Amino acid sequence: MELVFLGTGAGLPSKTRNVSAVALNMTQEINEVWLFDCGEATQHQILHTNLKPRKITKIFITHLHGDHIYGLPGLLSSRAFQSGENQPLSIYGPVGIKEFVESTLRISQTNLTYPITIKEITEDGQLFETKEMVVETKKLQHGIASYGYRINEKDKPGELLVEKLKEFGISPGPIYQQIKENEITKLDNGSIIYRDDVLGPPKKGKIISILGDTRYSLENIPFIKFSDILIHESTFTQEKELLAFEYKHSTNVQAAKLAKKANVNRLYLTHISSRYQEEDADSIIEAAREIFPSTWLANDFSVYEI
Amino acid sequence: MELVFLGTGAGLPSKTRNVSAVALNMTQEINEVWLFDCGEATQHQILHTNLKPRKITKIFITHLHGDHIYGLPGLLSSRAFQSGENQPLSIYGPVGIKEFVESTLRISQTNLTYPITIKEITEDGQLFETKEMVVETKKLQHGIASYGYRINEKDKPGELLVEKLKEFGISPGPIYQQIKENEITKLDNGSIIYRDDVLGPPKKGKIISILGDTRYSLENIPFIKFSDILIHESTFTQEKELLAFEYKHSTNVQAAKLAKKANVNRLYLTHISSRYQEEDADSIIEAAREIFPSTWLANDFSVYEI
Repeated sequence: MELVFLGTGAGLPSKTRNVSAVALNMTQEINEVWLFDCGEATQHQILHTNLKPRKITKIFITHLHGDHIYGLPGLLSSRAFQSGENQPLSIYGPVGIKEFVESTLRISQTNLTYPITIKEITEDGQLFETKEMVVETKKLQHGIASYGYRINEKDKPGELLVEKLKEFGISPGPIYQQIKENEITKLDNGSIIYRDDVLGPPKKGKIISILGDTRYSLENIPFIKFSDILIHESTFTQEKELLAFEYKHSTNVQAAKLAKKANVNRLYLTHISSRYQEEDADSIIEAAREIFPSTWLANDFSVYEI
Repeated sequence: MELVFLGTGAGLPSKTRNVSAVALNMTQEINEVWLFDCGEATQHQILHTNLKPRKITKIFITHLHGDHIYGLPGLLSSRAFQSGENQPLSIYGPVGIKEFVESTLRISQTNLTYPITIKEITEDGQLFETKEMVVETKKLQHGIASYGYRINEKDKPGELLVEKLKEFGISPGPIYQQIKENEITKLDNGSIIYRDDVLGPPKKGKIISILGDTRYSLENIPFIKFSDILIHESTFTQEKELLAFEYKHSTNVQAAKLAKKANVNRLYLTHISSRYQEEDADSIIEAAREIFPSTWLANDFSVYEI
């Protein structure tokens, strides 16, 4: 599982930071990529990565500001050009996202070659559950309906304890898979194996919280608590705390405070205003690390293993 | 006056060719830039040129396919971020362009800081006239309403003939401007100067024809006739003539034939399918030049003086 930052700027693109998008690449795990926000030219950014648009199965939109959605019609269209299995795509986002997608595709007479479903969020809570994941959402504090997404990977069963199996006189073979998949397995010799007796401890699933634009708010703590990864906006630096409040955005230090209070494992700052240049990066990170040492400043094309 | 090609690809962006857009930079002449089509990431391309979005006063959309319009909402939004004189902007395009612009801006809650007017084209003929220009439009042959634009720069009065003025005993000074601006000027010594007697021949205005996606059609000849510049799509090479016909596009050789028949001065090929790579460029140009020698293949960021 890896995070691929595709756009880490705020408001409008600059030469170094494109507008918002981040991909959760789970190709290895479930053969899917999930995309969070889709600012203009996200498909262009993807051209410079190893991500394949046809592997994108779910797109989560945090809010409807242009720098988070204007790349959506183009990405959807180009995905239709790719040969492939015409895999369905789901889009989640605030009320209005359906009209945006449908009207832009209709006016441009774009016919997708794959089915899409669009689910508009109307309340906080669980958004959906799959075999491997539970996704929750929560409304944040912004000038427009803006949501956070919490991706909870389910715990995975532990590994088979090979030594234990050998004690039972079972040699490696297809029987191992059978034991792993069933609570009870009856062997040819008539004996019975309980899975629990030969499995190691379950592997804890990862929790990844990705928030849209938001004012600093303690109300967000329960939602992001104990996340392995928190992606939080950091439009401004702490000197502009008042500006951040007025524009309903956050600062680097506020994001760090929240990460600390919520006991998360790692914090990635993104959505950086174009007023900040490359030479400001160190001070942005350092000020945040004074509060929460495990902080990183995301750049376009940053890739982080989870 | 110069042409700045911002996107010269067809359908979807590649690493080397973005989707359609070309700017007619008239900053020197009338302090304006006119943009023709606005595919996704046109504003990103502009970041790598000396063009200023706030100088763009008119945007002409040839047709509503996504690769020609998906960059419009982002460009309009970013233009509002730029400090400046809040110069009005006009958009011209097929019926539907108004709904596209208005709905995308409304859903993303984008408030522009400058006035825009959107004129939808409903018939061929003169689109508008300014002090310096006459712009005409014509419907082409494509699967969707697609237009060509013919920009006719008006002839400019000739230069003052300094030698002639000296013969009349007039020395350089503000009087020169007065003579240039008036049909008849009465001098202090009572004599009369007719402008026609002291002006060189008028300077012929340039004609630039920019066609949207179109099938090869002789019907386009009268519209583009005697253009100084013809920008014509060349989605395919001649080997794919049948495909071009079926998809209502043109080939390089067809564009050259049309340029020749219409007696234009220079032909720029654009809208190149991503099936063609850099190594195909020479053969694309050469095949066209066999028919019409003054042919050029436009690349992203190609700049041509007119």
